[in-house]
Amino acid sequence: MPSKYLVVGGVAGGASTAARLRRLSEDDEIIMFEKGPHVSFSNCSLPYYLSGTVANVDDLVLMCPEKFRSQYNIDARVNNEVIAIDREKKEVEVKNLESGETYRENYDKLVLSPGARPIVPPIPGIEKANIHTVRNVVDIDRLQQDIEKTRPSRITVIGGGFIGIEVVENLIEAGHTVSLVEAAPQVLSQFDTDMAQILHKELIDHDVDLVVNDRVTAFDTNKVMLESGREIETEIIVMGIGVTPDSALAKAAGLKIGSTGAIRVDHNYRTSDPDIYAVGDAIQVYNPILRDYYTLALAGPAQRQARAVANHIHNIPVDYHGYIGSSVVKVFDYNAASTGLNERMLQNTSIEYDSVKIVPKDKVGIMPDAEELHFKILFEVPTGRIIGAQAIGRGNVDKRIDVIAATITAKGTVDHLKDLELCYAPPFGTAKDVVNMAGYVASNILHETFKQVQITEIRSLVEKGAFILDVREQEEWDVGHIKVAKHIPLSELRQRIDEIPRDQPVYVHCRSGQRSYNAVLALQYRGYTEVYNVAGGYIGLCFHEYFHDRMTGREPIVTEYDFT
Amino acid sequence: MPSKYLVVGGVAGGASTAARLRRLSEDDEIIMFEKGPHVSFSNCSLPYYLSGTVANVDDLVLMCPEKFRSQYNIDARVNNEVIAIDREKKEVEVKNLESGETYRENYDKLVLSPGARPIVPPIPGIEKANIHTVRNVVDIDRLQQDIEKTRPSRITVIGGGFIGIEVVENLIEAGHTVSLVEAAPQVLSQFDTDMAQILHKELIDHDVDLVVNDRVTAFDTNKVMLESGREIETEIIVMGIGVTPDSALAKAAGLKIGSTGAIRVDHNYRTSDPDIYAVGDAIQVYNPILRDYYTLALAGPAQRQARAVANHIHNIPVDYHGYIGSSVVKVFDYNAASTGLNERMLQNTSIEYDSVKIVPKDKVGIMPDAEELHFKILFEVPTGRIIGAQAIGRGNVDKRIDVIAATITAKGTVDHLKDLELCYAPPFGTAKDVVNMAGYVASNILHETFKQVQITEIRSLVEKGAFILDVREQEEWDVGHIKVAKHIPLSELRQRIDEIPRDQPVYVHCRSGQRSYNAVLALQYRGYTEVYNVAGGYIGLCFHEYFHDRMTGREPIVTEYDFT
Repeated sequence: MPSKYLVVGGVAGGASTAARLRRLSEDDEIIMFEKGPHVSFSNCSLPYYLSGTVANVDDLVLMCPEKFRSQYNIDARVNNEVIAIDREKKEVEVKNLESGETYRENYDKLVLSPGARPIVPPIPGIEKANIHTVRNVVDIDRLQQDIEKTRPSRITVIGGGFIGIEVVENLIEAGHTVSLVEAAPQVLSQFDTDMAQILHKELIDHDVDLVVNDRVTAFDTNKVMLESGREIETEIIVMGIGVTPDSALAKAAGLKIGSTGAIRVDHNYRTSDPDIYAVGDAIQVYNPILRDYYTLALAGPAQRQARAVANHIHNIPVDYHGYIGSSVVKVFDYNAASTGLNERMLQNTSIEYDSVKIVPKDKVGIMPDAEELHFKILFEVPTGRIIGAQAIGRGNVDKRIDVIAATITAKGTVDHLKDLELCYAPPFGTAKDVVNMAGYVASNILHETFKQVQITEIRSLVEKGAFILDVREQEEWDVGHIKVAKHIPLSELRQRIDEIPRDQPVYVHCRSGQRSYNAVLALQYRGYTEVYNVAGGYIGLCFHEYFHDRMTGREPIVTEYDFT
Repeated sequence: MPSKYLVVGGVAGGASTAARLRRLSEDDEIIMFEKGPHVSFSNCSLPYYLSGTVANVDDLVLMCPEKFRSQYNIDARVNNEVIAIDREKKEVEVKNLESGETYRENYDKLVLSPGARPIVPPIPGIEKANIHTVRNVVDIDRLQQDIEKTRPSRITVIGGGFIGIEVVENLIEAGHTVSLVEAAPQVLSQFDTDMAQILHKELIDHDVDLVVNDRVTAFDTNKVMLESGREIETEIIVMGIGVTPDSALAKAAGLKIGSTGAIRVDHNYRTSDPDIYAVGDAIQVYNPILRDYYTLALAGPAQRQARAVANHIHNIPVDYHGYIGSSVVKVFDYNAASTGLNERMLQNTSIEYDSVKIVPKDKVGIMPDAEELHFKILFEVPTGRIIGAQAIGRGNVDKRIDVIAATITAKGTVDHLKDLELCYAPPFGTAKDVVNMAGYVASNILHETFKQVQITEIRSLVEKGAFILDVREQEEWDVGHIKVAKHIPLSELRQRIDEIPRDQPVYVHCRSGQRSYNAVLALQYRGYTEVYNVAGGYIGLCFHEYFHDRMTGREPIVTEYDFT
């Protein structure tokens, strides 16, 4: 006896669930409802239409309803919105948005994949502003048409999350003048503040008018008013503050909603009604490191959940391992990837942790395209279990974060990273990869082989008159250095050790942390007990200071920045 | 009481051991002997000097003896060859190759890092040939100078391993005419024969005169004679047949040599003499999947071993996890990476295994630089434990292999791959990454959800008159197809199912394996019991057939190849 399955939402999770349900049975009836005019579009690719990277708006649509019918025998109904669930009768009420008629469909199992919707806060004057959001193909098409029609002197993007950043990048690539307003002190909350400074620099280097730590207080016609008093003249506004789980339908049907505002599901993705499943951005998921639920608006997890739901409906058990959240974003010439927890997420937990930051080259230094890679890992103390990582650089950062994600999933520690055998040839990496190096350094910190200080602390150390030792070579010092630093190249350290005071802490840095590590160990061996390696070195420090120095006009602590 | 440590060999393993020994003690005396004129050069980068990618020969040298002295207080003696070990007296005999004098140095601990040397077989007439090898900076400088002087009409590289391939690529980039002669049926034995065909095509597409399955029987002046009867006129010959562990010094000292011909060491890298350690290409290492010893000429493992030796000397215990061997090589526009075991290595073992091959896009298909990625994983039956993987494509193959390497190390199975949370954004990958997909397919094969046939078997199936079903769309069929295939697009499959015979096996393919998988499941559901998915699809088949068709002049089984 064939079953009848209804799927609400025809993108990502919904479309995948429907396709998998078909693979598991030829006979069942499968209907997929999508309130928009398109199913199965690449929502992650939407911003790339603005720059022409994706040339045609139609390319964003991967599968049409006709193909769902012919290839999968799935009834995909676009412009059909499920407006209510009648759990008693096991029916949904559907509104055909073209005809305006409503009708009902019964189900054996119902799968909700409504996604998340952009947050548009009720800021005064918002009705006067020309506000766009970017959720689907219609949105991006409308935005692009508006841009072509308006020929705006400035486009303002509000919110520096993934979508905001990607929209900014693609608008700049298309030649527009763009302001980006972020209420938090930094863009991209996946990254810790120290790491985000690299991206701030990249944004302003590409002429983005970047405003952080300032919020929109009001809109007016062609105008955005900020808390700081600044007003931005702008014809077009893109709202990218964030998304909120689209849980209204589930809530109205009396399904349990989690503390996150997202739909609560069990480990088989069943809602509080055993005949109703939910997947994708609208549900909350369990983070095994946090040991708590959170929401993730990521495509990969939605795909996994879709498969799990179809399997569970067909009595195929699926393990629930939880979700750590891995993501990557391109910010002009930089790539920025992260996985697991960051320091912000750790703040309100009882997890004890430490972190290391290194800035090695991502390829053999003599290769023409070798680039610095800023790499940070967080690990639990005292176990050394890896709990998160962030990588930012011009090169292959996603590779390193994927390896960390696999290692976190395997419950690996910093010691495991040391021995990972990663691919090496000069065009691809170094014999001791960034990941291995991070493992070595983190293991040293965990086992207290040496101590470190973060680049975030250097300015205050400088102000307190701390003894900072720069062990780089003369030509590097000449390019730029911390104004108050003592300069003794590593090659002269042993002869000039008496110039280093024994009665106060010594903070040692080189360019990226490798030579200073050698210096720290040599000093320790000679009886210096309070010696600290500056994690991230001079290059990391310059990236960290640059944006704030420039934005605030404060006096730099370095003579010149060095980004080479 | 300070100790005295001697290190034989000043590259990779040797230099790293010496540096680490210094980090662990400021007082010990450390002497490093190198018979060549350079320590610490990037041997993996040598071929890149031939194309000018590395502009200056001096750039290949990373550290000079003076810097070893000033930065590490290490006495690095170039042009000093250790010619004998007196284990009784704990002394080595050293020959100063500049003065010709010999002298002795005593040691508390001795570390051997002599590396491996290029194999130059005693082929008749070899003394008449202008033979080069590529082991060090002197070699590559001499080769380049010879090329500039001779202006050869043709350079012949013998041996298609890493060095041979990299030399070929860089010579072609520099505009030379190059023949590559490989005795085996394929280049790069890290890859299985089916995967290597992709690289064969790439080599001939870049005008390399590629000769496989043919061996050099004799040399004459400016001439190479092959077993096939072919003669190659060539002024310069580069011997890249392979390397052999440089274990002569150890052997002469009576140290135990393994069955591989390499130095035998224990899990602390100690030779049969407890005061003598050995690291790098000269030793044999344990492969935990094979449960046997083998040799690896890779830089990463040498670095690990160096650290382990210095640690053990200083009583810091280090775990020995063994070595699975991960590597990557650039072959013109293609990148080729592998980890763990391949089918060749599995041949003489009792390990039962299966494999899957998929050819998905490495990025969202609408991104301009999305490329096919040929991906193969091998897994143990019945456990599903991953035992090896190979990836070849224009994009980011090393990323995927690194993730597999990390998963192998964590003893993961194909099921683990399904749920790995890997970074995704359209410029970097797909929501369901290649690695996840491989996990899904392998899990399906392991759990016998469906059956597959390898592209290596298609030609013989065609010859036997098997029923091959092509479910691609009409426009794809029109570009090219298997001549004898039956064409029913997936979108018409359900209506035309009666055209598919029930009394013989059905082999289904599409472009890359995704649509045919849906077709296979639909047919199974309708009672077809002998249905096979063609792993790798039409794109995989075309790459597999092309080189052999072209080399042998045999009749292709396809109307046209499709590489787009």
